[in-house]
Amino acid sequence: MKPNFSLRLRVFNLNCWGLPYVSKHRSDRMKRLGDFLNMESFDLALLEEVWSEQDFQCLKEKLSFTYPAAHYFRSGIIGSGLCVFSKHPIQEIIQHVYTLNGYPYMIHHGDWFCGKAVGLLVFHLSGLVLNAYVTHLHAEYSRQKDIYLAHRVAQAWELAQFIHHTSKKADVVLLCGDLNMHPKDLGCCLLREWTGLHDAYLETQDFKGFEEGYTMVPENHYVSQKDLEPFPCGIRIDYVLYKAVSGFCISCKSLKSTAGHGPYNGTPLSDHEALMATLCVRYSPLQQNPSFTYGPAGRLPLISVLREAWTELGLGIAQARWWAAFAGNVIGVGLLLLVLLCFLVAEERAREVAILLWTPNVGLVLGAGAVYLFHTQEARGLCRVQTELQHVLGREREAQDLSSEPQLALLLGQERGQN
Amino acid sequence: MKPNFSLRLRVFNLNCWGLPYVSKHRSDRMKRLGDFLNMESFDLALLEEVWSEQDFQCLKEKLSFTYPAAHYFRSGIIGSGLCVFSKHPIQEIIQHVYTLNGYPYMIHHGDWFCGKAVGLLVFHLSGLVLNAYVTHLHAEYSRQKDIYLAHRVAQAWELAQFIHHTSKKADVVLLCGDLNMHPKDLGCCLLREWTGLHDAYLETQDFKGFEEGYTMVPENHYVSQKDLEPFPCGIRIDYVLYKAVSGFCISCKSLKSTAGHGPYNGTPLSDHEALMATLCVRYSPLQQNPSFTYGPAGRLPLISVLREAWTELGLGIAQARWWAAFAGNVIGVGLLLLVLLCFLVAEERAREVAILLWTPNVGLVLGAGAVYLFHTQEARGLCRVQTELQHVLGREREAQDLSSEPQLALLLGQERGQN
Repeated sequence: MKPNFSLRLRVFNLNCWGLPYVSKHRSDRMKRLGDFLNMESFDLALLEEVWSEQDFQCLKEKLSFTYPAAHYFRSGIIGSGLCVFSKHPIQEIIQHVYTLNGYPYMIHHGDWFCGKAVGLLVFHLSGLVLNAYVTHLHAEYSRQKDIYLAHRVAQAWELAQFIHHTSKKADVVLLCGDLNMHPKDLGCCLLREWTGLHDAYLETQDFKGFEEGYTMVPENHYVSQKDLEPFPCGIRIDYVLYKAVSGFCISCKSLKSTAGHGPYNGTPLSDHEALMATLCVRYSPLQQNPSFTYGPAGRLPLISVLREAWTELGLGIAQARWWAAFAGNVIGVGLLLLVLLCFLVAEERAREVAILLWTPNVGLVLGAGAVYLFHTQEARGLCRVQTELQHVLGREREAQDLSSEPQLALLLGQERGQN
Repeated sequence: MKPNFSLRLRVFNLNCWGLPYVSKHRSDRMKRLGDFLNMESFDLALLEEVWSEQDFQCLKEKLSFTYPAAHYFRSGIIGSGLCVFSKHPIQEIIQHVYTLNGYPYMIHHGDWFCGKAVGLLVFHLSGLVLNAYVTHLHAEYSRQKDIYLAHRVAQAWELAQFIHHTSKKADVVLLCGDLNMHPKDLGCCLLREWTGLHDAYLETQDFKGFEEGYTMVPENHYVSQKDLEPFPCGIRIDYVLYKAVSGFCISCKSLKSTAGHGPYNGTPLSDHEALMATLCVRYSPLQQNPSFTYGPAGRLPLISVLREAWTELGLGIAQARWWAAFAGNVIGVGLLLLVLLCFLVAEERAREVAILLWTPNVGLVLGAGAVYLFHTQEARGLCRVQTELQHVLGREREAQDLSSEPQLALLLGQERGQN
């Protein structure tokens, strides 16, 4: 690598709100998105909520000249909605579907049917290895009573782990997507602390867009004003995150977001705002990997957030086990009822009613069985994440045994007491 | 790293056949397995089919002195059955659950309920990074009519991709497990070709065990003789695979398998044979990573196996789509019947029969709906794997455009024609 090596990366991210039959003016918005991407000629455009594969195919055709490489991440029943258009050839592709992603019986929320995932694309740019990740986590339907919190925290951990383990030889890591988490939310902190990713909005000196970097704002007429009631100014849930490892440094020269309307005014491209970042990567052989330079005090935020996530997952596990136990009881009652109905038929008492009730009762037992199995698997999935967090905390404890940082000892001591 | 650095690794692998209430003499076998592991003091013991977490906890307690580190990979409804005991501290843990893993309605086969997975443990041994993977793929219930072939090929690809992307900074990669594939099976070849892993049985000069390295043999009295009918001598489906990357070389000094009975004669430990490998890792700075030294001819087996897998997945997709379409038709017929029943009730004709048939018919529609959704998701999952294979073939085609290897051009030309 030449000492004066530098690379400019222009990146676009948008949650496209592309649900067929539901999202307003979808085909018009997709058309305008294609025109805009062609005109701006970014290095990389990472999109979420492109639920229709046909929309992807149309975009791919339209963008084939400016972005010769494209990939659609297939997953679940509806699809992950993730896709990427790139000016540069894609060297490698892999995706990871999140183990936990809501509940199949919450049909009106639909997340379970999507198979939410994280997609990774590896690029080789002038000898530099870039790992670009795109993701979309479970939506938050109520901030006051968020029944999906444990799932989103688990997804954030799976995402962080996936990045951590697949980016060990990358020079630059880029993550774009709709995390469905506010910047200070538990999952967001967990992700940043475990991966060491930096938030473009917080890092850049040149930001153009809404205050606080909001990416869902009431000014956007596609946004449901009711959903934004608790946050009258808007929320920030879409991100451009990045890091460079040893030997390179990366900075965000500028970050721009649309402001409730299209990029050149007019109708918005989506109910989310688009993010456009210009990143600059430079060769810097003396730059150390920050994860190796953390002292005990530097590990404090990580330990604190790991502990918080561990506790939150514990609540999720208790909830999942409660539902599994409830479904188990329903199965028991249903089976008893079936025996009773058999008895009534055999005794020729209320025979018609018994025969009539037989099938719904079988349905009840089968339905409760499915609920039991689902929540058993949910509890196991959450336990798995909790065990992984516990392992990291255990490693930190071992490191702490060698250090004498009192605050660290206190935090880890608390965690040890809870295990 | 010192020039004369060398490391000896003693590894144990066993599919433990630990299904509560089903597997014979389970607790006795687990007890003897614990005694044996304690006595032999391997560096690493990787186990499959430890379905009961209680069995893992008992083993963990028993082995805590010899193997201070242990991990159980939780997954699915029953569990992945995978666990690891190690003499050395585990630095990092991650697992990946396979997207496709059989069918929920094949309850008697049960694989779907396990959430089959691959687990990764990262070790730091005297400055060397060892990535140890343990896995168990979908079982093969009939070799003549293997309805799970596409799923197993997809799992083999996911496994290969997971290893490929998570081991980029590892010095040594080790994979142990029950792959449920014979050595020349498509999935096995795909895995070896894409990861560059070597088969300990084929590499070692010192093998003690059954001819052809069989790991399920009729001599083992726990083995169902009916299952082994097509292979009267036995089959090899359990493996120790390994590779070292640039700067290191690895060899298998010896490989030993049990021979239809316990390690010191007597009752076998399982219906599978145990594998015990002694690996030797040496520092070898001049050793090149074989993946970088492949010429066009060296890529031929990879391309050939990628194409074969691509075709096999195509058959799986067609099958999945057929089932989804069939379920769709059943839903249509069921809905029509519901309308007819409503009509009969409204017209007061055969009212009792109509009411009686209402609920089973609703059940039929719901059941067919579930089958439709499942096979839609299956087709999407298989398409995803096929797209990833196609991407690799595309990259190979680009490389081939720069080369003039006629055999390679022929193979890639065939694939191009089929896309």
